[in-house]
Amino acid sequence: MEQIPAVTKERLLHLMRILENAGNEFFTSARIEGLTGWSSHTIRRDISHLEAFAACGEGTAEGAQSRLGSANGYAPACLVPLIRRALGLDRSRKYCVVGLGRLGSAYLNTLSSPGGGFELAAGFDVSVNRVEILKSPVPLYPVYKMGEVVSRFGIEIALLCVPAGAAQDAAERLAAAGIRGIINFAPVVLTLAPELAVRNVYLDEELRALAVRM
Amino acid sequence: MEQIPAVTKERLLHLMRILENAGNEFFTSARIEGLTGWSSHTIRRDISHLEAFAACGEGTAEGAQSRLGSANGYAPACLVPLIRRALGLDRSRKYCVVGLGRLGSAYLNTLSSPGGGFELAAGFDVSVNRVEILKSPVPLYPVYKMGEVVSRFGIEIALLCVPAGAAQDAAERLAAAGIRGIINFAPVVLTLAPELAVRNVYLDEELRALAVRM
Repeated sequence: MEQIPAVTKERLLHLMRILENAGNEFFTSARIEGLTGWSSHTIRRDISHLEAFAACGEGTAEGAQSRLGSANGYAPACLVPLIRRALGLDRSRKYCVVGLGRLGSAYLNTLSSPGGGFELAAGFDVSVNRVEILKSPVPLYPVYKMGEVVSRFGIEIALLCVPAGAAQDAAERLAAAGIRGIINFAPVVLTLAPELAVRNVYLDEELRALAVRM
Repeated sequence: MEQIPAVTKERLLHLMRILENAGNEFFTSARIEGLTGWSSHTIRRDISHLEAFAACGEGTAEGAQSRLGSANGYAPACLVPLIRRALGLDRSRKYCVVGLGRLGSAYLNTLSSPGGGFELAAGFDVSVNRVEILKSPVPLYPVYKMGEVVSRFGIEIALLCVPAGAAQDAAERLAAAGIRGIINFAPVVLTLAPELAVRNVYLDEELRALAVRM
């Protein structure tokens, strides 16, 4: 399949969220434009990246004939699985928690939803003592075993929950261990190879995003 | 000042983030369209909501004459403060942490950045024992004092860190106490009056947003 540009992927994920919460109503690109500000042209071009999108299509012959699509818009039940597949969200991925302080041990005990496509597989901490004492639903390891465990379990994602001062070093160890994506909770900007995906969850950003809606 | 639509505010916040990280380069609306997918028309209309925007303007007489703006785009140093003011991010707001388990006590000790506009003021828990024992940089209170403390300190925002089963009840107490915005870390959808702003930080959503970039 052709490579979908990163910015298109982000829009498709956002669109998928809207459609998942939408029930059965049809969505015209004009309506999506109203909800998101993306131009109808952008929306149609984004959706054209999906395989077999025409069957869900807006104003196409196939769309008009389809049970799921219609000439009057896109049908969520038709588009959502196509977006999921195009974004690679139709297979399960393993993740680990790195840094088992308060935040890390909270995320050891926050299981992602069943069927959501993500499976917690392991936890890591620099303290051998902490690794031995903490209660956990998954096995815990000292950091020096990271490379071996990540490769053995096929872990792709890490939640980085170490203190700010330790985050860059831990992220580099994760990269060396073969991790492909990091959710960074430490309030620092990580400097890593561009092929490693990083998503920052910064308290300040969350607060700002909330405050503008108050 | 005129009321800015919610969807415009979200785009302006996103634009502010892009501009804050941009240094001194000028941004045309065509370039912003390339980065975000929003149509140039949408971008110009969003920016037209800002007071005194013309001085930073793109292709306006004022813009061409301005030190900060130019006919070839918008200047970040000019636009960012205008967006900050329009979004109400130019004044300080107080927040509290509700639920002092692992996640909550992690956020008691994650100070938002100085000058970021947010100030941690208090923590709450149902357990009087926990409130008395926990070390914290701010005063802690049992939940039954919430109304009094929120009003006395002028707290506007809560980080909701209670278990999923307790989240709806705690959110209703917060609403009754006069809180105006909630960041909800519990993996449940809260049902609250529409005037209360809610931002959900769901682990699954963060994992999906990361996975599409891997």
